[in-house]
Amino acid sequence: MTQPIVLHGHTSGPNPWKVAIILEELKIPYELKIVDFADIKKEPYTNINVNGRVPAIEDPNTGITLWESGAIIEYLVETYDKENTLTYTTSPEKYLVKQWLHFQMSGQGPYFGQAAWFTKFHHERLESPTKRYQDEIVRVVSVLDKALTGKKYLVGNKCTYADLAFVTWDSMLPFIFGDKFATLNFEKNYPAYFAWNKNLTERPAVQKITKDKQAAMAKGH
Amino acid sequence: MTQPIVLHGHTSGPNPWKVAIILEELKIPYELKIVDFADIKKEPYTNINVNGRVPAIEDPNTGITLWESGAIIEYLVETYDKENTLTYTTSPEKYLVKQWLHFQMSGQGPYFGQAAWFTKFHHERLESPTKRYQDEIVRVVSVLDKALTGKKYLVGNKCTYADLAFVTWDSMLPFIFGDKFATLNFEKNYPAYFAWNKNLTERPAVQKITKDKQAAMAKGH
Repeated sequence: MTQPIVLHGHTSGPNPWKVAIILEELKIPYELKIVDFADIKKEPYTNINVNGRVPAIEDPNTGITLWESGAIIEYLVETYDKENTLTYTTSPEKYLVKQWLHFQMSGQGPYFGQAAWFTKFHHERLESPTKRYQDEIVRVVSVLDKALTGKKYLVGNKCTYADLAFVTWDSMLPFIFGDKFATLNFEKNYPAYFAWNKNLTERPAVQKITKDKQAAMAKGH
Repeated sequence: MTQPIVLHGHTSGPNPWKVAIILEELKIPYELKIVDFADIKKEPYTNINVNGRVPAIEDPNTGITLWESGAIIEYLVETYDKENTLTYTTSPEKYLVKQWLHFQMSGQGPYFGQAAWFTKFHHERLESPTKRYQDEIVRVVSVLDKALTGKKYLVGNKCTYADLAFVTWDSMLPFIFGDKFATLNFEKNYPAYFAWNKNLTERPAVQKITKDKQAAMAKGH
């Protein structure tokens, strides 16, 4: 019997919840451990992740300790998705899934994150960096829209871990843009992206994690 | 016989050269095609990479077209590194290699790139964003230094694709920091990182690509 995987995360950031969605999709038992922001860059947590970030996992079934959400997702799928429900075994499909995962990791996540930083957390309001990263978000959305036109999913005709990897950052956009979000009108301007994201958010695993995140944030973590 | 893989790149950016190092290490024949910056975000190049970035590869041996340097590296190693010289087949080692690759893709590359942007290319000089990203570079270096203390390579005792993935961005640091670079004194402050990077830059594949890049830049691409 599979023992619960420990998922180290925090409440507000999207990356641990991204891993949680994969755990839910694959019905892998897990336990979420919240790491307080104050503790994240010091021991004992840095013994788990020397980079001082979440997520990280500890899997008692294999003994592995692993960080970086992209690597964790690849590990979970290769180890537990025995029927390849969220991936492909054929080439080029299996590499195209990796391509979109790396785009999520190196393109979506960092740019969306920098936009959030300059919009919400930087100690001074700076117009041009804020604009730079908000523009980059729209560019990333436009790339996804173009790739998804005429298609339901990024690779082939089934939902893969690559599609799911984008959801939690996408759900941050109303927070990042504030009042400006409505004016971007993604439904009209990027309809393939909009329909794809809507479809993904309606999956039971994504719905559950959205609720779990709201509940965790309401607890004040 | 392996037909040459087409590698789409440009001269100055580090990511195509990162892939070239892997091609050299694995002795895979390839042909570098320079995409001019003016052509990168429009057709026909966007038919190869909808994201309008380099690198991308076209492999006539398998018919695949693939972008995102991280995914390309995973593809090349899985397809051509039959003796696993740059990776592991055992767990947890093979996932730890992926972990460091994802850290390179999502941590090193984006932050180093933003530092270069605000130092060299942004239309106005802004102190706090420049400081933010330069500080983040030093933090990434300190994480690598901590992970490498007492070790020659990131995972186990051989050089993997994860080690090699960091080299081309690391080589940009004198350019990014300018006169400030010497004052950071990585040799004294981050000796494990310094020795690791020096060792990697002395590999024949890295030496060759360093020369190829310099020659391409001298041609004025």
